[in-house]
Amino acid sequence: MARWFDETLYDTQRQSFRIDREIYRGRSEFQEILIFENATLGRVLALDGVVQVTERDEFVYHEMLTHLPLNAHGAARKVLIVGGGDGGILEEALKQPIERAVMVEIDGLVIEQCRKHLPSVCGKAFEDPRTELIVGDGVKFMAETEERFDLIVVDSTDPVGPAVELFGEAFFRAARDRLTDRGVLVTQNGVPFFQPQEISDTYTKRKKLFPLTGFYLAAIPTYYGGFMALGWASNGLDLARPDRAAIAKRHAQLGIATRYYTPDIHVAAFALPSFVQELIR
Amino acid sequence: MARWFDETLYDTQRQSFRIDREIYRGRSEFQEILIFENATLGRVLALDGVVQVTERDEFVYHEMLTHLPLNAHGAARKVLIVGGGDGGILEEALKQPIERAVMVEIDGLVIEQCRKHLPSVCGKAFEDPRTELIVGDGVKFMAETEERFDLIVVDSTDPVGPAVELFGEAFFRAARDRLTDRGVLVTQNGVPFFQPQEISDTYTKRKKLFPLTGFYLAAIPTYYGGFMALGWASNGLDLARPDRAAIAKRHAQLGIATRYYTPDIHVAAFALPSFVQELIR
Repeated sequence: MARWFDETLYDTQRQSFRIDREIYRGRSEFQEILIFENATLGRVLALDGVVQVTERDEFVYHEMLTHLPLNAHGAARKVLIVGGGDGGILEEALKQPIERAVMVEIDGLVIEQCRKHLPSVCGKAFEDPRTELIVGDGVKFMAETEERFDLIVVDSTDPVGPAVELFGEAFFRAARDRLTDRGVLVTQNGVPFFQPQEISDTYTKRKKLFPLTGFYLAAIPTYYGGFMALGWASNGLDLARPDRAAIAKRHAQLGIATRYYTPDIHVAAFALPSFVQELIR
Repeated sequence: MARWFDETLYDTQRQSFRIDREIYRGRSEFQEILIFENATLGRVLALDGVVQVTERDEFVYHEMLTHLPLNAHGAARKVLIVGGGDGGILEEALKQPIERAVMVEIDGLVIEQCRKHLPSVCGKAFEDPRTELIVGDGVKFMAETEERFDLIVVDSTDPVGPAVELFGEAFFRAARDRLTDRGVLVTQNGVPFFQPQEISDTYTKRKKLFPLTGFYLAAIPTYYGGFMALGWASNGLDLARPDRAAIAKRHAQLGIATRYYTPDIHVAAFALPSFVQELIR
C-alpha cells in the first residue's frame, strides 16, 4: 500500500503527495525536515509538515520573487535573502547581473540537506563567488547590519514557528532602513483564499512604515488554494506601476530562460481579484 | 475520527476535504453524485470522485466563464450552456442583460440534487423566464439545433466519462456553426500544470476550425494545481485583445458585484506563463 504525505496546514482541507521514496527525515533545532520523491512532483521538501518546495514547480515562486523585482528595478547590485534554505531564490537571483547576494538562513541543516538532495533547486548558487552565506537569525542580522540592499527577499515559512518574527513590525522597519532609495522588499504572504489574515496583517503593518507597498500574485501549484500573495514594499520604487516596455527590453537583453515569468505575466501579476482587494482595504 | 473525501483525479497527488456532513450520495445513469458539507468550503459537489463546485469558491470559475466573454462581446443576447448542472453559470450569465439562456445538461439527477442542496450556487436561475432548461445530450443538441448563440459555455467535467465527446472535433465544429458572427465559445480546459494534454489537444483541434482561438487563466482554489485554463474560440471576436476601456465602462454600468472578476483581471487573464505558452505552440 502506498505511503502518503498529508500536509498539515489546514484542518478541513489538505493536499497530499504519494511518498515514492523517502530520502531524508530529521529534526533540526528549529523544525522537522522531510525530503521525499514523488513521481509527478520530483523531490519535495516539507518543513513541520508543510510543503516548501518541489522540483517540478519551484520555478514559479522563485522566478516571481527575483526576476519581477529585479527587472522592475533595472539596476540592482546587492540582494539580501532571508530564509530560502533550499537555495532556489539564490540561484534565480544570481542569473541576473548582480554583484553580491547575501543569504541569511537560520537552519543550517535545511541548507545541508537541500544541497545534498535537491541540487536541481540550488544549482551552483552556493559556490558562486558573489554569494555570502550566513547561517543565522535573519531578524538579528537585519537589526545589526549596516549594509543596504537593492532587493531584500524574505523566503520564509508561514508565520508560525521559527518564521513568526519575519512577519513583525520590527522586522519590517529594520528591512525598510536597509533598502537603497529605489530598493524593494518582497515576501511570501500566504494564499489569500485560505489564509486571508496573512495579507491583511502584513498590509496593516507595512502601510504605516512604507510610502509604497502592495501585493502581486502567482499561481503556484503546490501552494494549495489558488493564488499566493507576494508582498512588496519600497521607499522609492512603485512596483505596482510596471513599465512594460522597459521590463520587456531588459528581459530580452538578459535572455534568462524563465518558465513562468514573462513581461506580460509581470504586469498581469498586479491585477488583484475583488476578494483580494477587499482584504487590504 | 473525521471522514475525508479524497479526490481521485490523480494517482500521485490529491486534495482532500473533511466531510463534516454527508448530504446526498447517489448514482445517476451517468455518474456517482456526492454532496457534502465542509466547514471551510461550504457545500461541495463531487462527480465520480472529482470536485465540481464548492459554495465558497464557485464564484471564480462562474464569473470568469460568463462576465469575461459577455463584457468583451458587449451586446450578447443569447447564451447556450452545455453542462453546468449546478446552475452556477446560468445564474451568473443571467445577471447580464441577456434575452435568453438555454441550458442543456445530460444529468437530470445532478440538476435536481443541486437545486435542492446547493441553492446558493444557482439562486433563482432555473425559475428565470429567460431560461430554457433541456435535460439531454449537449452533443446531440448542438448537432440538431438551428439556433445561433452569442455565447456558448461548455461547463463540463474532464474529458473522461460522459464529457469525452464535448472535447471532440465534431462537437467543436458544430459549436462553431452555432455561433453568431461575433459569438464566442468558452470551455474549461483543465489545469495545465497537471493536465497539459487537455490544453494541447484542444488547441490542435480548434486551430483547424476557428480563425480565432486561445486560452485565458483563472486561479480556482479547489481546481487543484495552480491556474485552470479556460479555452475560447470565435469566428469574429478576438477575445485575446480586450478593449480595457470599453470593458471597464460596461462593467461599471452593469454594476454586477463580482468577487473575482474585475476589468484588470479580465485583461490579466490572457497573460500566459511560459510553460503554458509552450503547450500550445
